[in-house]
Amino acid sequence: MGAPRKTIDKVLVANRGEIAVRVMQAATELGIETVAVYSDADETAKHVCRADEAAHVGSSVANKSYLDQDSLMEAAAETGADAIHPGYGFLAESESFARRVEDSEFIWVGPPADAMTDFGEKTKARAIMDEAGVPIVPGTDEPVDDPERIEAFADDYGYPVAIKADGGGGGRGLKVVRGPEDVDEQFRKAKREGEAYFDNDAVYVERFLENPRHIEVQVIGDTHGNVRHLYERDCSVQRRQQKLIEETPSPTIDEETRAELCEAARAGVAEAGYSSAGTVEFLYEDGEFYFLEVNARIQVEHTITEAVTGIDVVKEQFRVAAGETLSFEQSEVEPRGVAMEFRINAEDPFDEFNPTPGTLETYRPPTGMGIRVDDGVNEGDRITPFYDSLVGKFVVTARDRTEVLERSKRALEEAEIEGISTTIPFHLAVLEDEVFVGSDHTTKYLDRQFDGLDDS
Amino acid sequence: MGAPRKTIDKVLVANRGEIAVRVMQAATELGIETVAVYSDADETAKHVCRADEAAHVGSSVANKSYLDQDSLMEAAAETGADAIHPGYGFLAESESFARRVEDSEFIWVGPPADAMTDFGEKTKARAIMDEAGVPIVPGTDEPVDDPERIEAFADDYGYPVAIKADGGGGGRGLKVVRGPEDVDEQFRKAKREGEAYFDNDAVYVERFLENPRHIEVQVIGDTHGNVRHLYERDCSVQRRQQKLIEETPSPTIDEETRAELCEAARAGVAEAGYSSAGTVEFLYEDGEFYFLEVNARIQVEHTITEAVTGIDVVKEQFRVAAGETLSFEQSEVEPRGVAMEFRINAEDPFDEFNPTPGTLETYRPPTGMGIRVDDGVNEGDRITPFYDSLVGKFVVTARDRTEVLERSKRALEEAEIEGISTTIPFHLAVLEDEVFVGSDHTTKYLDRQFDGLDDS
Repeated sequence: MGAPRKTIDKVLVANRGEIAVRVMQAATELGIETVAVYSDADETAKHVCRADEAAHVGSSVANKSYLDQDSLMEAAAETGADAIHPGYGFLAESESFARRVEDSEFIWVGPPADAMTDFGEKTKARAIMDEAGVPIVPGTDEPVDDPERIEAFADDYGYPVAIKADGGGGGRGLKVVRGPEDVDEQFRKAKREGEAYFDNDAVYVERFLENPRHIEVQVIGDTHGNVRHLYERDCSVQRRQQKLIEETPSPTIDEETRAELCEAARAGVAEAGYSSAGTVEFLYEDGEFYFLEVNARIQVEHTITEAVTGIDVVKEQFRVAAGETLSFEQSEVEPRGVAMEFRINAEDPFDEFNPTPGTLETYRPPTGMGIRVDDGVNEGDRITPFYDSLVGKFVVTARDRTEVLERSKRALEEAEIEGISTTIPFHLAVLEDEVFVGSDHTTKYLDRQFDGLDDS
Repeated sequence: MGAPRKTIDKVLVANRGEIAVRVMQAATELGIETVAVYSDADETAKHVCRADEAAHVGSSVANKSYLDQDSLMEAAAETGADAIHPGYGFLAESESFARRVEDSEFIWVGPPADAMTDFGEKTKARAIMDEAGVPIVPGTDEPVDDPERIEAFADDYGYPVAIKADGGGGGRGLKVVRGPEDVDEQFRKAKREGEAYFDNDAVYVERFLENPRHIEVQVIGDTHGNVRHLYERDCSVQRRQQKLIEETPSPTIDEETRAELCEAARAGVAEAGYSSAGTVEFLYEDGEFYFLEVNARIQVEHTITEAVTGIDVVKEQFRVAAGETLSFEQSEVEPRGVAMEFRINAEDPFDEFNPTPGTLETYRPPTGMGIRVDDGVNEGDRITPFYDSLVGKFVVTARDRTEVLERSKRALEEAEIEGISTTIPFHLAVLEDEVFVGSDHTTKYLDRQFDGLDDS
């Protein structure tokens, strides 16, 4: 083990928006020059202004720019970059792109393509985790070809069961079956979605957890065999599997469960020879946790882990990619305080969270103690409909959960954003909601427990 | 001991700029309504927009507004405030204002007027600290009326000696005497300045430290007899006694010295029955520290202490003012990491740091991990010549000093400020300077050791 040390002098960030800016900030602090890429729509975007140089990679549609592997590889070559960081989304979990970069002269700042293979197919990921002693949801070990196997599984475990696309993740290709009469239809639908989204129509079946919390563990490994965890995040405030608020530590688990969960996650990816940053996601219900999936990339919500540990996860990614060892021991990871992240999306929470493109007439994020702002926009920017609606993140840190709630409310009220609708009124309503304040919420919170927004 | 608990529902912040905003942020988090005051020049200022309500207190000249006690008391009465927070500067250390508020129906959110009396006269402050075992610079115990006593003192301790205004502070009314021939003239000058600035022409004499570092200890006490320290700050980067960069922990003292210094400072103010936030300032030379003065108020640089301890000093001030006990024990104060504050002044570092009023055409402070921004301005604001030139503070936190230097450079380069000159180019030059990087600087750094700005 142990890749040779390489020097990264210039990195191309194959992404846009806040994560491109965030990756560049880490690179700059390490003395690495930065190259932005941009589509037609993003010519004057913040991530372009922030970079040392920038390369145009195509038209506004992501397929023709941020997802265009040829164009990105060309940009890296032309600008003399020696490394590529994919951010999250776009090509971040593309096994083929990771492998292509690995096989090129460029350094891939992310998990190895092999790890993506391992964890990209859900049945394989389940098998790896199972072997490492990580608790998994009861389900089939292999893809199922026949709806009858689903019925047989449900006979053993009871309805509801979940049919899941083997290549899936983030809730796409997931179908819930509530009785034998639905099996055929949902089986076909799941296969169709798997094919459409992931180019893979294999599906498998699992017991379906009705009302779980989403708890995930940040892990990071180097190429010298060290894998560490950076404790957990609770991301149970979701709308259609999209996280909206994340916090750490999870207010719902005790110290013993936390220690067990984090070590299990760490051991699981270590077993698979994982390196770079990753997240092991779990569902937690009735005091038990169950492995959900591994996200082989940096995540949106890595910021709250940084806030309580002081460790810069993106810098560690660069160190690992350069063949260095992680800069900290497991025993040095000592979370302090409580952090919450609020995703500021250009969406209208009063209208089904529909995207609200438009011009950002006013943009004044909050300031002061305990406030970290990560964003990808400047005042005056046009928010286009081409990409995901995340324009920024407010990360709030405090001594305890009560203070973080108070501070978050203060910060969200202080923010001045005009010209587009955002998720801020939603966040403020959640902060007043006793279910969230009491931390009694699950991933079904927005469907079942949340009193809703007052649109008066 | 132990004042009765009082409720603060609404606070008038008798200040402007970033500290007014910062105090309001703490108040809002505690559920306290906020009242801003403003002069003619500040009608649309950020601290006014930030407040729940605002009261006009006079014309642009500070004497007729922010220093006008009658006007401020009236504003508090008219808005139904039940407390007054003075911030720093203006009336923050006015014993007469503190006493007036104490004697009124309003709660004073600051140290008691009696503490200001104790620490306002330097010879008295020295005596209190001496008694508590705090090392003080050798000097006269009482004001001196006769230049001959200065010569006698210098005969004992050697030249240079410092003649200091008894009512002074922050370097005003301080005269250095390098030989017997200067005694008469500097004695007269010091008395004149003391009279002019502090309405007190008494002076005393001290050994003059030629090349010290400035190290200070944050303390805070409640009205139940608890006084705690929040460790030290190193503020040796100064220009004419005005701090420009502050950091914590001090990179120049060892753990044992730190513990001793902080406990001495704590014990000293505890002896005097101090409450609320305060700072005990020391000079440190040749491995010895010497008491300089007590600043009986919140300081500009309290932010770096908050960054490493997680404790919100301004919130503690409110708690103490309401008769509550401090929210933490001494053993719970565990600094983590390193923090630096960079004062963003509307000054031209290429032109003797002269103020540069003007319009803030562009204002984009830095974002991302480890960055706290405190400011008192919005893009488009006119920076007027009426008040001090501090427009904001960038507070940078990291795991160690090397990382804080890297992150600070990144943040200061990232900031986009157009329309006025600022101290940013100065800070960037200091971050490249080996004396500062090696932490070999003293309070004479800018005069003697700093290579200067490259104005090419």
